[in-house]
Amino acid sequence: MAREQISREQAVAPYFVGVDLGGTNIKIGVVDDCGQTLAQTAVPTNETLGAEAAMQRSHAAILKLLAELQLTIDDVAAVGLGSPGSMDISKGLILEPPNMPTWRYFPIRDCLGKLCGKPVGFANDANAAAYGEYWVGSGRQFKSLVMFTLGTGVGGGIIVDGVSLDGSHSFGSELGHIIVDSRPDARLCVWGGGQGQLEAYCSAPAVAARTADLLATGRESSLTSRIAQAEELSSLMVFEEAERGDDLSREVILETARLLGVGIVTVVHTVDPEAIILGGAMNFGGHATATGKMFLDRIRAEFQERAYHVVRDTITIDYATLGGDAGYVGAAGIGRLLYQRTNS
Amino acid sequence: MAREQISREQAVAPYFVGVDLGGTNIKIGVVDDCGQTLAQTAVPTNETLGAEAAMQRSHAAILKLLAELQLTIDDVAAVGLGSPGSMDISKGLILEPPNMPTWRYFPIRDCLGKLCGKPVGFANDANAAAYGEYWVGSGRQFKSLVMFTLGTGVGGGIIVDGVSLDGSHSFGSELGHIIVDSRPDARLCVWGGGQGQLEAYCSAPAVAARTADLLATGRESSLTSRIAQAEELSSLMVFEEAERGDDLSREVILETARLLGVGIVTVVHTVDPEAIILGGAMNFGGHATATGKMFLDRIRAEFQERAYHVVRDTITIDYATLGGDAGYVGAAGIGRLLYQRTNS
Repeated sequence: MAREQISREQAVAPYFVGVDLGGTNIKIGVVDDCGQTLAQTAVPTNETLGAEAAMQRSHAAILKLLAELQLTIDDVAAVGLGSPGSMDISKGLILEPPNMPTWRYFPIRDCLGKLCGKPVGFANDANAAAYGEYWVGSGRQFKSLVMFTLGTGVGGGIIVDGVSLDGSHSFGSELGHIIVDSRPDARLCVWGGGQGQLEAYCSAPAVAARTADLLATGRESSLTSRIAQAEELSSLMVFEEAERGDDLSREVILETARLLGVGIVTVVHTVDPEAIILGGAMNFGGHATATGKMFLDRIRAEFQERAYHVVRDTITIDYATLGGDAGYVGAAGIGRLLYQRTNS
Repeated sequence: MAREQISREQAVAPYFVGVDLGGTNIKIGVVDDCGQTLAQTAVPTNETLGAEAAMQRSHAAILKLLAELQLTIDDVAAVGLGSPGSMDISKGLILEPPNMPTWRYFPIRDCLGKLCGKPVGFANDANAAAYGEYWVGSGRQFKSLVMFTLGTGVGGGIIVDGVSLDGSHSFGSELGHIIVDSRPDARLCVWGGGQGQLEAYCSAPAVAARTADLLATGRESSLTSRIAQAEELSSLMVFEEAERGDDLSREVILETARLLGVGIVTVVHTVDPEAIILGGAMNFGGHATATGKMFLDRIRAEFQERAYHVVRDTITIDYATLGGDAGYVGAAGIGRLLYQRTNS
């Protein structure tokens, strides 16, 4: 579901371009000074062709998108780029992105900057998404927020007074790596590390893996017949069967919520934001489904039970509203921050 | 051990006064523009006499301390006040300090400000201590740090680029309340809440309580004979017996280190600071003893094992150096920040 787009007449100059680099696609949007989207597109990442080719493809798509709006690159004040980690934000480098070996240590920010002839704000992809929600999404009425992105991994973004908590090694806000189970036999992340860390329980593959473990104990579930038909067990399948009332699927989702609630308590006691925003593809349908509501209710209940009373009743916990657009919108916003800083 | 004091000739104007409000004593120091201490003193908190009387006593002590230095309050640019929480930093209120019922909702910042006729910077006591270590203590070469204070409770302070992470409800950096054990049967804090939170394992009373639990299983320990002589089991006693080679005492301290290491990993993956500083009274002798070295080594080992590789080898973990002076030095530094902000 694409974000509502505004016409050029409705837009407030200056314009910004946001680029959200993902493992499969690169999402690109033209965003106005109020965070409204004028146009968006996506190009394949084609990671095997290398980072420079991907930036050239992105640049071409930007020019095409602008032309469709009867704009040129001269109408753009700045560009923003959100990238998966690890990265060196101050140097503009992508360091060791998972599954993208040919991209290592590539000066991606300056490459895109040279192609566009524009200053480029650079951020971690989850921090960019958090900034998007903070700027114009479900966090727009708050001065500070923490966002969890639940998907292939668990990412995080922390915005305090409009500033992203990037950390001193560009590793701030990596909330998938907070520890929720300190036992020696705690789960490992699907990539084999991160024992007991949030990502080992609350990513989409982790939800599937935990479900498989429960099924392996011989428990009944409507998942079993689907798997028997050679369907691959996934968090989406767990969601679908939970919607149909499957107890085991619901139990997995409730335990996911409990552990996410634990992580949220820890982050709240560290950062004390005004809001917690839940983004990413794995939201079990969000507010639109019974399972999505159950998931959020269980997270809120765990938070209520464990949070210190000063913060218990004042912090909003809710789903994100920008969906898959948060990344490029937030990246554009990071570009805008850079523009404002250098032009004030 | 009091901090080395400098003479007025060595001092760099302007001067600042730091006030560190504790449950038993109020520590007060006169600090120069470089964070050096010119003089310090302490007055009893006498909490039953109320907050206003305590501030009057503090004010009198400040004037006396200045007079001894042949200074007056006119030589002071600003005052800083570190206070136990809960609090409302923006309003200058102390809200519900534990064990100080008569102090509730007292406008402590403005009370001290009126008495002194000076602007007063206001901070949580642990955040003030963290700022002290950041300014002139073991964190002085770092741009960001996280400090854990281990004592009657577990406190925390987070400084990023010179700014204390106070949070939106003055509840930021409350690192004693991060969850290190999410099990339903995890330990409670000694005050009865905070299940599975760091304070339930790593405060001085929690160390004593965990030791008592182990002794109750009938295990041998040199602690037993001391307790039989009507000595009260304390974290200090556990430290002393660990120094004498008692296995059970060493085991308790190593487990304390392990769980603190878990908490440190979580905070590092959230904040990504340059350094972790361990302060507070419970440091098992710090670098000066075998037990203190063992404690630190075990913390570092747990961090090495669990932290993401990007941050694993770059983050310093070490003891604080200002000891009990960190609070008033940091409070003075917070006063100095306020002065710089309003005079720039």
